[in-house]
Amino acid sequence: MPEFHQPLSGMKTPRFAGLSTFMRLPHVPLEQAAGIEIGLIGVPWDGGTTNRPGPRHAPRQMRDQSSMLREYHHALEIAPFKLANCADLGDAPVNPADLMDTLERIGDFYKSVRDLGIRPLSAGGDHLVSLPILRALGAHEPLAMVHFDAHGDTWDDYFGGSKYTHGTPFRRAIEEGVLDPERTVQIGLRGSLYGPQDKRWALDQGIRILEIEECVALGTREVMDQARAVVGERPVYVSFDIDCLDPAFAPGTGTPEAGGFSTREAQTMLRHLRGLDITGADVVEVSPPFDPAGHTALVGVTMMYELLCLMAEQADRRR
Amino acid sequence: MPEFHQPLSGMKTPRFAGLSTFMRLPHVPLEQAAGIEIGLIGVPWDGGTTNRPGPRHAPRQMRDQSSMLREYHHALEIAPFKLANCADLGDAPVNPADLMDTLERIGDFYKSVRDLGIRPLSAGGDHLVSLPILRALGAHEPLAMVHFDAHGDTWDDYFGGSKYTHGTPFRRAIEEGVLDPERTVQIGLRGSLYGPQDKRWALDQGIRILEIEECVALGTREVMDQARAVVGERPVYVSFDIDCLDPAFAPGTGTPEAGGFSTREAQTMLRHLRGLDITGADVVEVSPPFDPAGHTALVGVTMMYELLCLMAEQADRRR
Amino acid sequence: MPEFHQPLSGMKTPRFAGLSTFMRLPHVPLEQAAGIEIGLIGVPWDGGTTNRPGPRHAPRQMRDQSSMLREYHHALEIAPFKLANCADLGDAPVNPADLMDTLERIGDFYKSVRDLGIRPLSAGGDHLVSLPILRALGAHEPLAMVHFDAHGDTWDDYFGGSKYTHGTPFRRAIEEGVLDPERTVQIGLRGSLYGPQDKRWALDQGIRILEIEECVALGTREVMDQARAVVGERPVYVSFDIDCLDPAFAPGTGTPEAGGFSTREAQTMLRHLRGLDITGADVVEVSPPFDPAGHTALVGVTMMYELLCLMAEQADRRR
Amino acid sequence: MPEFHQPLSGMKTPRFAGLSTFMRLPHVPLEQAAGIEIGLIGVPWDGGTTNRPGPRHAPRQMRDQSSMLREYHHALEIAPFKLANCADLGDAPVNPADLMDTLERIGDFYKSVRDLGIRPLSAGGDHLVSLPILRALGAHEPLAMVHFDAHGDTWDDYFGGSKYTHGTPFRRAIEEGVLDPERTVQIGLRGSLYGPQDKRWALDQGIRILEIEECVALGTREVMDQARAVVGERPVYVSFDIDCLDPAFAPGTGTPEAGGFSTREAQTMLRHLRGLDITGADVVEVSPPFDPAGHTALVGVTMMYELLCLMAEQADRRR
Amino acid sequence: MPEFHQPLSGMKTPRFAGLSTFMRLPHVPLEQAAGIEIGLIGVPWDGGTTNRPGPRHAPRQMRDQSSMLREYHHALEIAPFKLANCADLGDAPVNPADLMDTLERIGDFYKSVRDLGIRPLSAGGDHLVSLPILRALGAHEPLAMVHFDAHGDTWDDYFGGSKYTHGTPFRRAIEEGVLDPERTVQIGLRGSLYGPQDKRWALDQGIRILEIEECVALGTREVMDQARAVVGERPVYVSFDIDCLDPAFAPGTGTPEAGGFSTREAQTMLRHLRGLDITGADVVEVSPPFDPAGHTALVGVTMMYELLCLMAEQADRRR
Amino acid sequence: MPEFHQPLSGMKTPRFAGLSTFMRLPHVPLEQAAGIEIGLIGVPWDGGTTNRPGPRHAPRQMRDQSSMLREYHHALEIAPFKLANCADLGDAPVNPADLMDTLERIGDFYKSVRDLGIRPLSAGGDHLVSLPILRALGAHEPLAMVHFDAHGDTWDDYFGGSKYTHGTPFRRAIEEGVLDPERTVQIGLRGSLYGPQDKRWALDQGIRILEIEECVALGTREVMDQARAVVGERPVYVSFDIDCLDPAFAPGTGTPEAGGFSTREAQTMLRHLRGLDITGADVVEVSPPFDPAGHTALVGVTMMYELLCLMAEQADRRR
Repeated sequence: MPEFHQPLSGMKTPRFAGLSTFMRLPHVPLEQAAGIEIGLIGVPWDGGTTNRPGPRHAPRQMRDQSSMLREYHHALEIAPFKLANCADLGDAPVNPADLMDTLERIGDFYKSVRDLGIRPLSAGGDHLVSLPILRALGAHEPLAMVHFDAHGDTWDDYFGGSKYTHGTPFRRAIEEGVLDPERTVQIGLRGSLYGPQDKRWALDQGIRILEIEECVALGTREVMDQARAVVGERPVYVSFDIDCLDPAFAPGTGTPEAGGFSTREAQTMLRHLRGLDITGADVVEVSPPFDPAGHTALVGVTMMYELLCLMAEQADRRR
Repeated sequence: MPEFHQPLSGMKTPRFAGLSTFMRLPHVPLEQAAGIEIGLIGVPWDGGTTNRPGPRHAPRQMRDQSSMLREYHHALEIAPFKLANCADLGDAPVNPADLMDTLERIGDFYKSVRDLGIRPLSAGGDHLVSLPILRALGAHEPLAMVHFDAHGDTWDDYFGGSKYTHGTPFRRAIEEGVLDPERTVQIGLRGSLYGPQDKRWALDQGIRILEIEECVALGTREVMDQARAVVGERPVYVSFDIDCLDPAFAPGTGTPEAGGFSTREAQTMLRHLRGLDITGADVVEVSPPFDPAGHTALVGVTMMYELLCLMAEQADRRR
Repeated sequence: MPEFHQPLSGMKTPRFAGLSTFMRLPHVPLEQAAGIEIGLIGVPWDGGTTNRPGPRHAPRQMRDQSSMLREYHHALEIAPFKLANCADLGDAPVNPADLMDTLERIGDFYKSVRDLGIRPLSAGGDHLVSLPILRALGAHEPLAMVHFDAHGDTWDDYFGGSKYTHGTPFRRAIEEGVLDPERTVQIGLRGSLYGPQDKRWALDQGIRILEIEECVALGTREVMDQARAVVGERPVYVSFDIDCLDPAFAPGTGTPEAGGFSTREAQTMLRHLRGLDITGADVVEVSPPFDPAGHTALVGVTMMYELLCLMAEQADRRR
Repeated sequence: MPEFHQPLSGMKTPRFAGLSTFMRLPHVPLEQAAGIEIGLIGVPWDGGTTNRPGPRHAPRQMRDQSSMLREYHHALEIAPFKLANCADLGDAPVNPADLMDTLERIGDFYKSVRDLGIRPLSAGGDHLVSLPILRALGAHEPLAMVHFDAHGDTWDDYFGGSKYTHGTPFRRAIEEGVLDPERTVQIGLRGSLYGPQDKRWALDQGIRILEIEECVALGTREVMDQARAVVGERPVYVSFDIDCLDPAFAPGTGTPEAGGFSTREAQTMLRHLRGLDITGADVVEVSPPFDPAGHTALVGVTMMYELLCLMAEQADRRR
Repeated sequence: MPEFHQPLSGMKTPRFAGLSTFMRLPHVPLEQAAGIEIGLIGVPWDGGTTNRPGPRHAPRQMRDQSSMLREYHHALEIAPFKLANCADLGDAPVNPADLMDTLERIGDFYKSVRDLGIRPLSAGGDHLVSLPILRALGAHEPLAMVHFDAHGDTWDDYFGGSKYTHGTPFRRAIEEGVLDPERTVQIGLRGSLYGPQDKRWALDQGIRILEIEECVALGTREVMDQARAVVGERPVYVSFDIDCLDPAFAPGTGTPEAGGFSTREAQTMLRHLRGLDITGADVVEVSPPFDPAGHTALVGVTMMYELLCLMAEQADRRR
Repeated sequence: MPEFHQPLSGMKTPRFAGLSTFMRLPHVPLEQAAGIEIGLIGVPWDGGTTNRPGPRHAPRQMRDQSSMLREYHHALEIAPFKLANCADLGDAPVNPADLMDTLERIGDFYKSVRDLGIRPLSAGGDHLVSLPILRALGAHEPLAMVHFDAHGDTWDDYFGGSKYTHGTPFRRAIEEGVLDPERTVQIGLRGSLYGPQDKRWALDQGIRILEIEECVALGTREVMDQARAVVGERPVYVSFDIDCLDPAFAPGTGTPEAGGFSTREAQTMLRHLRGLDITGADVVEVSPPFDPAGHTALVGVTMMYELLCLMAEQADRRR
């Protein structure tokens, strides 16, 4: 077995001790990251937020809370850090005073990640950060995507012109040809809308929308069967907006919508992705100012851990 | 189409900007309210609270949180503000130092509302505020009622004599002939009781009680079928005590009881009321001091929005 | 009917008034406790906690929150304080500076309780406090146990040697012969593990483990049927770690794990224990510093109330 | 030395353990209180509050926080529990649904306290609770008073008629002849007023008002010299409204006013009362819902401890 | 006396009732604002914030908290609403997705305010909002300014180029000729700096800087004497950054710096401005997400009230 | 100038981005630390806490909050990172399940630090962590100490025997000969005591105690003149217990005592240490569970920054 990076052991360094990194993995700067298979990355940015900012603070709080996680997944029966070489690659560069510049900086960072053969598992940031990631990962071929969210995020613009907000990333990604709408499925949508046209565009592109009501009616298993049918067998990106969860489970977010998933449902759904070729994934919209105690961040990194296990298993299979 | 009041657009004024009104509607004082069909009203009062006061502060926090709501209901596929002329009528008058005087002031206010042909959608206040509203709306004929709550609120008195508390409104309403017990259904009851006699009186009057255990056993659809069978086709009042929800979903309330509904279940049940002739409705017992961040208030206004959509649709049909 | 202690009446002393005792029962020191059948006891200690301490503060907060409970269980239709003589026996003695001394002090206290014929219903403290209780109650014959938890708590040691932590009580209890593994069932386990060996030892001893995924698949009724089959008809101890609940329902705990039970599910499961000969029970790991408002403590005492009703009913039957 | 009640020792029972009583003293019901010299009493009531209720919950939180206090005052060099026989007398009876009845119940309770020769040190409650206490203690002769507050609380009525609110107690007390305005001094007043008439009545009665600006200009020593000159040598009541402190030091109160005293200044001022014949004292307006973590309650009991030391020293001298 | 707008009376409508406006004044849209002398305005915007956003939410929370204020200033002995015609002019328009557009929108709004002869008293927003206000008020002649802050906010740029952040407004204002550096005084500065050059530019322009250490050494009276000497007798703008206060007094802000002013000191200093011709003023950088309970917002509106009294007195004198 | 480690620039990486280290310095493991002059070290441990644990979580929260600090001290006019080579050395090793083992581990770590010629600036942890640090630094000659605290921490034992708690470190240090009581000064003491004997031992050893009352009477300058007279010119250790501050300024601590210093006073006092040969320093007893928002941690690192500046200046002079 190759020598993979291992998390700091809770049996040698207590969970409350040591510097905060994602899942207690070593921090490996990008320039030393050759050989890393899965890179955990923070994207501390919320410049696309139109109402209540905050997710710029999420990577730090999520690193902190991730110290609660142990090395073996009880249900998947996987020890991810033994299956793939993982590391905390630090935060993608951002410019809090310039949105367009930030999109470019993030995009460049993820292109380097991609070129190193590293699959990124990212902690946002608001949902606009998915756009530069998709640009990097989908540069050669539009990606399939499984998208958990309370909102479709395919609005066209905001405030009479702004094309880049946390409500527009997937419309831009489709327009730019980095996301394949016909292999995109959106799960859990439910927020009130501006009007019926809000989902029209998405449906017209061929996106499969499973609103929360349909999810409840179908049950998580059937939902995920349909989701897998949509995305097929090719590489797929998974984007998990924490507000797909009910605010009872994830209060720390900027646009909470009542009536969402429980964490248990979300975990079940994520595990149904087992076996897919996940080319990258993110958990976005955790907002520490609205949950200083970090309960939401812990939920966020728990979802990252579910995704990590699936990605690690695939990395191992590819070997 | 008549010129209805519209909410401040989130595309022109950000959701965090502008004065706080219910759902960003214009504030229309009662004296200028002719033509309004649905009136959103605050009742800032908790003088009937026996343990932990707080709901007097709810209308303000609920107005604030209601700025998160958009104009179109994704599942009902209704744009309520296009179907009915709605406005924020401000707060009903109260006298925090005199319970009986307050009941009279609130009652007078709602009589004026009624006389203007406005259907009220109210944000309490503790549950005693439902009494003067029922007095106004049920003056001519006892009302049917769908009542969501953890408690029956049909106790007789408190502390050896007090007849008007937030635990007694519906007993008083039945005694006064403004509420028809045989067309009243109570859903979600579960709080521990003083004794078996607590629900005896209600059952003797003919109230249909669906305790939470029965609700879980039946499922939301069957619960609501039964509820509709009870209330029939005549005008019905809907009273939604936020503590019918589990405290995980609505921690900001004075008498929380574990084991309640999720918001998702509540939304499903409310939507099953579609088509009923809702003559008025309230959401009560939100208590900001027990949830300063306002999560519970957001849930409360989300439930108001569900009710508003149903009421607006009916208003449109009556035209 | 014998003269049983009764809670302070909410109709004579408001719930916010009076000194805080468990369920507003009188405080009866152990030396005056002859005749008590069920003793409510606090164990303010968290010396076995390896990551985030706090449960030492739980008994005080749980006493405070228990003032919300009334005398009659609406679903079981039981008035527990009329069925058994109950009292608040105060806190077990502890020594915050010495773990081994504390285990002895607690053990001695519970032996006295046992020798007085009192069945203890305890509020922890971290989970290590169950060990000295089991030592007292299982001294003559190993106990059966129904154990609700996110973690098995059968680890062997910690940090290279420490044998007594809140992760090890049940391994010690089995080794010491006070707990019968073949009549022990663990319900709701789900936290990530150190490795596959973590549950191997428990399974090898014959413990029946129902991880959360199996619980969800089976449903609460079938889970409890299986649990009852495991423990049989002999005296059984019930240990309820508050972290078996999802953190949305019980955020105030030191080792939260997403994806747990709702309080409603927990109540349903506890009620399925009706008729068992519960020899003692505890609710542990409530941690006030992580929930200063006390929501979790209220959930904790609600679970104690469920257990109390079952224990009182049995006490009455034994008469 | 007589056998006085002693607090539970922190060296034998940790501060977080044991039932909550004021300063860990034994709870002695009034009927067994003969021989007690200083009685610590809770008055859990806020029926006189016009804006933000909450102090009804204060006695419980203040008892809890008082476990932090030790037995010897470092600066006064007094061990109060060795100088006087002190006990927690529990809570005065209240009726949350009836203001006038409550005033009578509290008054009767304090008359019994007085008749037993016990000097009361009370934890409110809102400021109206001082009125029935003054009625009991000043029944035979109008009392002198040192009054720390941000507000004068000598308004006449509220909302067009209500004579009994937390803004009116001292006007009523003067009118009823239980408080001597010419021997009353008010320290720290600063809240914005309804108009210049607000303090006119008080000044006309002969009350000495030291607004915060004058206090700052004079310094604490001179302020207290003046205060002592006003009250003279006869029995004096001390009423300490927690909102005399700046909200930074005491955020948990219903009517906070910026620009108040620090706790250090307050302690200094209270200590300058040394040697006075304090016939009773209270600390009021602590409001737990606005400070769930209890910082304000700790400040409140710290002030009670300062007063207790002075009262105990005098009790000892009277022997 | 002219008919001035009056706040909603707390004797007729309780402070917790009614819609939230600044100081309970009527909301008067700009198009109906002729005759208003002092306009209270919110500027809900924090697009210039480089670290922790939040002040966009301040106007709403400050309106809410301002309901605590009464009509008469106890120390200045002024009833401001009888001296000047005041109103809440609502929020200045902003575009959360476009900084430059927002500066223009705010600037245009304030030009209209100015052209109506209204003196603005504003609630930010981050400190960049002062720039467009100064542009409007200083268009014809550079303004003098009294500036309370922990930071000088005269940095040149941020992140290699951004010229408009909450750290640069006064450099821009000086460069644009709308602020007169030689008649500008900065009081309370203390945050750690990037280097010695940080204050060099300001000093070179002739700004008088009174760092906190000098303020403490001089005392508030002398500080303000010097401040008045700097600004002279001509129209002066007052900008009050809430972080000039110590975080103990104002925790809800994005860039807190230990060691600041108490609110009492701040009030004293503001009152020393009595008699100046205050042409406009603002209170900025209140950040609700960092103080959901609103303590900081209450402090903020208290400071606005101090300023309002001074401005009203001058308005009256000008008559 | 040698190449010193520099903090991550806020102009290149926003303050909310990047991994959390003390003051954004690089993390340098001890084995690579040759050449470091000042080492910032966390000691995540509270095993000596007798009442409310929590400081084990402080190093992580303090690292997070320290990102707010900039590189230049405005009042001392020092750029510390240009004067000395500083780094974050990570956390000292601890064993949460074994107090004596932990004291040894910490001690060994600090001996290595000392042997590398690094002066440690530590973030506790509870106050017992000062003991192993003093053992390392005072091994060859008893140290002088300036000690800021609300408590003397020279108690002998706890709970009938425990010799090592956060109330005993300095008694042990004196007994062991690593601390020189005659060159030790304690500043700000004020908590209530168990009895007059509590300070007797300390005074008998020759410790100079300046209780808060004496500090207020003398003023900060005179206090520090006296402190410097006590410690003389030889190497001195500075121990800053955050509870020397008033709880208004530092609520997040386990044993808060009203009536303490403001941060401004503390900063002033620390700066008066300028020029002393500070051989090491610590800031202890920050307790995140009692201040999840981190206000106290920010105050703590601000005090560390004051100390760092003094230590860096001396490092530069030694060159």
